Amino acid sequence: METIAYYNGKIGPLDEMMIPMNDRACYFADGVYDAMFTIDHIPLAIDDHLRRFYRSAKKIDIEIPMPFDELRAMVLDFCRRIDSPDAMAYVQVTRGVGMRAHAYSGAQSGPSLWVWVKPDVLDPMDREYSCITMDDTRYLHCDIKTINLLPAVIYTQRAEEAGCEETILHRNGRVTECAHSNVHILKDGALRTAPCDNLILPGITRAHRIAQCREMGIPVIEEAFTVEEMMEADEVFFTSASALCCRITKIDGKRVGGRDPQLLGRIMKAAWDEALSEVRALKA
Amino acid sequence: METIAYYNGKIGPLDEMMIPMNDRACYFADGVYDAMFTIDHIPLAIDDHLRRFYRSAKKIDIEIPMPFDELRAMVLDFCRRIDSPDAMAYVQVTRGVGMRAHAYSGAQSGPSLWVWVKPDVLDPMDREYSCITMDDTRYLHCDIKTINLLPAVIYTQRAEEAGCEETILHRNGRVTECAHSNVHILKDGALRTAPCDNLILPGITRAHRIAQCREMGIPVIEEAFTVEEMMEADEVFFTSASALCCRITKIDGKRVGGRDPQLLGRIMKAAWDEALSEVRALKA
Repeated sequence: METIAYYNGKIGPLDEMMIPMNDRACYFADGVYDAMFTIDHIPLAIDDHLRRFYRSAKKIDIEIPMPFDELRAMVLDFCRRIDSPDAMAYVQVTRGVGMRAHAYSGAQSGPSLWVWVKPDVLDPMDREYSCITMDDTRYLHCDIKTINLLPAVIYTQRAEEAGCEETILHRNGRVTECAHSNVHILKDGALRTAPCDNLILPGITRAHRIAQCREMGIPVIEEAFTVEEMMEADEVFFTSASALCCRITKIDGKRVGGRDPQLLGRIMKAAWDEALSEVRALKA
Repeated sequence: METIAYYNGKIGPLDEMMIPMNDRACYFADGVYDAMFTIDHIPLAIDDHLRRFYRSAKKIDIEIPMPFDELRAMVLDFCRRIDSPDAMAYVQVTRGVGMRAHAYSGAQSGPSLWVWVKPDVLDPMDREYSCITMDDTRYLHCDIKTINLLPAVIYTQRAEEAGCEETILHRNGRVTECAHSNVHILKDGALRTAPCDNLILPGITRAHRIAQCREMGIPVIEEAFTVEEMMEADEVFFTSASALCCRITKIDGKRVGGRDPQLLGRIMKAAWDEALSEVRALKA
């Protein structure tokens, strides 16, 4: 099959799935999600992503109505069953179904669980990426992976209109993250990346790259950097569930990075090797 | 009938309506809405609310797929058809249906139009309301009535848990608005209310109260006030589509206002008279 989707016990093709109008996703974006990408039908870092998913839900007081192991098995099963070996696996939980009312102690169903897998591919690592920059005007809860994503939609649309792939956000001069990925720089042989506060999502891929850099003896500095520091960095790259390590070579039309390709190449190779070994382990 | 709902041409009872999982409401909160309350089957300030609805959609680059007059006729018709004379009428538009992707120049249907009416009542004006205060951590686009409402959900829930009706938000000491209404004070015979910038919703009911105060010769000062100024005001009240003019007498457990009941009474009476005359006019 091309796609497969689940909603509260119902299963079908994603583009045919129907959900109640009164799901609180529809009126309040009252939910959280997570997403993984597959190589050869295996979702990368599934345990990390699902653990974050349960943590996100807890942060907004929602209990995911399925045990971790059962959800994990469902995601793995869906990834195996669809035709495409390269896919995106998506999980979401919302605060249930009921007549519209802001507060949630009133009458409504239990939480709604959404799961689907559709064909998609990782962002290739053998190309260069261009970005624009924009003011970060989002709310102050960017550490929680909620579906309040209209700002990310607008930022990404602006990038696309400018012929670019991502939008790098900054708040009072400080770079926070991108519309839907984390951004990092290399400078003087060290990895520099914003710390995990309420202004960025604690990216799973970010954490993997940091851990690998430490293992490889590359110093890691978790300190926010400015737009100017980014423009003058030795290398700039972004990471996300779909971007293991993607080189940025142009920002707002200006060339950036390109001064430490060897170090960036080591990080890229380590990222790819880790992904492949994870796939092999889960295949076995 | 008890409720009536419309989604892209389909009509049915609200709690039975189904919508596609891939509507961009579900993943991105990629849409805007508006809401009206009825008296005797007549939605108050319908033209103002619908005009704002079209303006909100335009601000996020969505075209509402129905002309104003046709939508207005549908809302009026739905309000007449449901059993309850007191109801909430809700309109929403989202950026359509398609496989999940942040940017929207790709393949997807045209925008989705949602309309429904359900029984609901105006907040009574003959009682006193209690509020809590919280930090305003929302995004910087509060002037657009989008469905990115998880912060409003959490704020309202916290109020309810504290036995209160609303949450008053402040940013760096400045009062912005409430979780789902505007807040105002009376001081030395004048109405003081925050100006319409990107930190508050330009409330329709707010605008009506301001216009009426001006007609009655009550000075109106559109300047933000601090939490301290609010705590020491002569009167404090909130307005929204469901709250024509509601007196706040307790904030964070402390008594507030109560020092100019005559002026507040005049504003309340004018609000109610305006609503009734609007209903009579539309009934005729």
